[in-house]
Amino acid sequence: MRLVVVGGVAAGLAAASRARRLDESLEILVLEKSPYISYGACGLPYHVEGRVRSLDQLRVYTKEYFARERRIEVRTEAEVTRVSAARREATVGASERIPFDRLILTTGAIRDRCCVLGGNDPNVFTIDTWGDAERLQRFLSEQRPKRAMVLGAGYIGLAAVEMLRARGLDVDLFEASPEILGRACPWLTKLVAAHLEKFHVRVHLGQPVMRIPACDVAILTCGLRPNTDLALDAGIELGRTGAVAVSERMETNLTQVYAAGDCCETRHLVSGRHVWFPLGTTANKMGRAAGATAAGFPERFHGIVGTSIVRVCGLGVATTGLSQPLARQEGFDAVSTAVEGLDRARYFRGRPVHVRLCADKRSGRLLGGAVVGEYGVEGRINVIATALSQRMLVEDFANLDLAYAPPYATVWDPVLVAAQQLAKLLH
Amino acid sequence: MRLVVVGGVAAGLAAASRARRLDESLEILVLEKSPYISYGACGLPYHVEGRVRSLDQLRVYTKEYFARERRIEVRTEAEVTRVSAARREATVGASERIPFDRLILTTGAIRDRCCVLGGNDPNVFTIDTWGDAERLQRFLSEQRPKRAMVLGAGYIGLAAVEMLRARGLDVDLFEASPEILGRACPWLTKLVAAHLEKFHVRVHLGQPVMRIPACDVAILTCGLRPNTDLALDAGIELGRTGAVAVSERMETNLTQVYAAGDCCETRHLVSGRHVWFPLGTTANKMGRAAGATAAGFPERFHGIVGTSIVRVCGLGVATTGLSQPLARQEGFDAVSTAVEGLDRARYFRGRPVHVRLCADKRSGRLLGGAVVGEYGVEGRINVIATALSQRMLVEDFANLDLAYAPPYATVWDPVLVAAQQLAKLLH
Repeated sequence: MRLVVVGGVAAGLAAASRARRLDESLEILVLEKSPYISYGACGLPYHVEGRVRSLDQLRVYTKEYFARERRIEVRTEAEVTRVSAARREATVGASERIPFDRLILTTGAIRDRCCVLGGNDPNVFTIDTWGDAERLQRFLSEQRPKRAMVLGAGYIGLAAVEMLRARGLDVDLFEASPEILGRACPWLTKLVAAHLEKFHVRVHLGQPVMRIPACDVAILTCGLRPNTDLALDAGIELGRTGAVAVSERMETNLTQVYAAGDCCETRHLVSGRHVWFPLGTTANKMGRAAGATAAGFPERFHGIVGTSIVRVCGLGVATTGLSQPLARQEGFDAVSTAVEGLDRARYFRGRPVHVRLCADKRSGRLLGGAVVGEYGVEGRINVIATALSQRMLVEDFANLDLAYAPPYATVWDPVLVAAQQLAKLLH
Repeated sequence: MRLVVVGGVAAGLAAASRARRLDESLEILVLEKSPYISYGACGLPYHVEGRVRSLDQLRVYTKEYFARERRIEVRTEAEVTRVSAARREATVGASERIPFDRLILTTGAIRDRCCVLGGNDPNVFTIDTWGDAERLQRFLSEQRPKRAMVLGAGYIGLAAVEMLRARGLDVDLFEASPEILGRACPWLTKLVAAHLEKFHVRVHLGQPVMRIPACDVAILTCGLRPNTDLALDAGIELGRTGAVAVSERMETNLTQVYAAGDCCETRHLVSGRHVWFPLGTTANKMGRAAGATAAGFPERFHGIVGTSIVRVCGLGVATTGLSQPLARQEGFDAVSTAVEGLDRARYFRGRPVHVRLCADKRSGRLLGGAVVGEYGVEGRINVIATALSQRMLVEDFANLDLAYAPPYATVWDPVLVAAQQLAKLLH
């Protein structure tokens, strides 16, 4: 029985590893089109920044490791150009045919550089792959540009801003929509924009860039879409988001063909709707479930609550669930409230932390939240994310038994204060 | 209608404030036996350490603030010596009689200095009240002792160790039980003891001190018990823990007499059993519910999951729910597992974080956890605490959508890895 996995980064290798663990007898082959496998793509901006000296530091495992320790064969520079589900074979390159019994597609996402005129100019970069990061890092070191523009204020755009400022470049950030991080949340946008401006980043919101103007260097972080060409060609159905539709067990519409990671959509556990929310953590979890299912021991991945975090110029910006405007679009009778508190006791150099929570007035259920601050952002957003996954009521959330000691928190944590205030709006 | 509140620290003032907010017409009187009200008692060790320069920094509000802003009369140095529920009156001092319609008891906890011989010696201190902290701070500054002993390795004992080491004293820590933090968890004890020894603290476990030996200064952190004398005298029933028994609405067995805070027991939401777990955060929440109920707008406080955190010599030590031995005592078929991971990416100076999780084999339910590390401890324990309050299954916990970015976490957070490993023990 042979399992072929297309793609050798997060989802693909998680799938292969999980399948091996559950079935020792399976023959497992991973095909990766690039020369690189198993690396932490979220660390790429930090390589460009200079914090990660060598890209090797981002490598998790080598091909040899997989062969030796997990009996998983990994081939790099092996691009799968076609999949025939009927013939049970994948084509590598022009003509090499590779038979499979079970197949897992983890083709990821691709960035469409043609989304803007000039997107292919030599001073325009992306930071999605190992190769991208190497090229950009070399360009910045050799050409020493002074002024940069970043297109897109999603989390990759913000990570790019942090990296460019750390290297001392002058930065203009452009975003087509009027919002930062695509949350339709003016509160969040205002907080982040004010912080960026303090760090001399010029923020241009609601300004779609049609053509990249003359500048020293530009980073393209918009135009990301699920890489579904192979899937479509093979007859695999896409969902309403344009990404591959999979069951909770990562099954596609084709028998014994599975998919996982950034090429797939997943269920948003707050709205109940399918969404495309490409993130490394989710890719890993989907990969695990796909590998287990492909190995004949089906596991479920129920979905996400849409948690993300990014650091930009020292500020942590984290969101989960739905913002009030997004919740209204989903048909909730959404109300929200924001509070500012301290991340810990003032005499432990407590710093401001901003918390926004959103709830459904009809059910009293928590729907989402955002946390912004220099410290203690990740822990607080994770508490909200955990509550969302359990469909927790605001009233119960306000009484959560959270840890308190002066070096770590204040007696009434800002997330609890926000919940108390939100509870008042529910009656 | 007059509400009298006995006690003016956490629970008492939370109760009075909540009652005022819900009923503008109520006459509210708070009686506090000491000269001090409304201060963060958890900050007292940090005043002794020198980090909190003036005790005033720990004061939240003044009497005048309560009178002016909340129309709550606060009397200090007004010790309630008797309560007669039948006559609806409290006695202050020898004979002053104060009538009430509703009463909230927040008499807190007291430390029994007679639990050890020599407990009343002039070089033996506690750090429970404002007065305690002032006396100890003065003693340390004036007498400049070199060697200290701390009795009790609960969280106050550990905070005392941190404070004494920060002041440069040589410290011996004595604990009667074989465990640190009373968790019956050898794993936790070993981690913390090893850390303390690195900081030259001599740890003596399983060594009950019968008589305090000659030493420069001793800090007594054992022998804490609920202060129930007034309640007992008034005919208020205690629970099996020896603390005041209250309903979820903070009602005692006497009509319109309520209790809240460290003098009360509360429900442990994991075991379902009543426990005595005196902490400031819980006292505040109980106080709020008591105030609302006393004002005629009953609110419920369902209970706790037993979360606590302490920092000792730079190490964060946090626990929640039940440890495996405690869970077995409660009748669970408990299994547990521990993992070590990094709190964030290595290239962001990620430091080790240790996570232990415990679950019930029969139901698959998460029962408790502990997190130990220099950073990122509070956020991780809070995620576990939130999951416990929702009776979450380990399997679901392992798929939580937690925030990931290299400055804040690793792709597979140690708490998720621990849950994955624990899940394997459940089948």
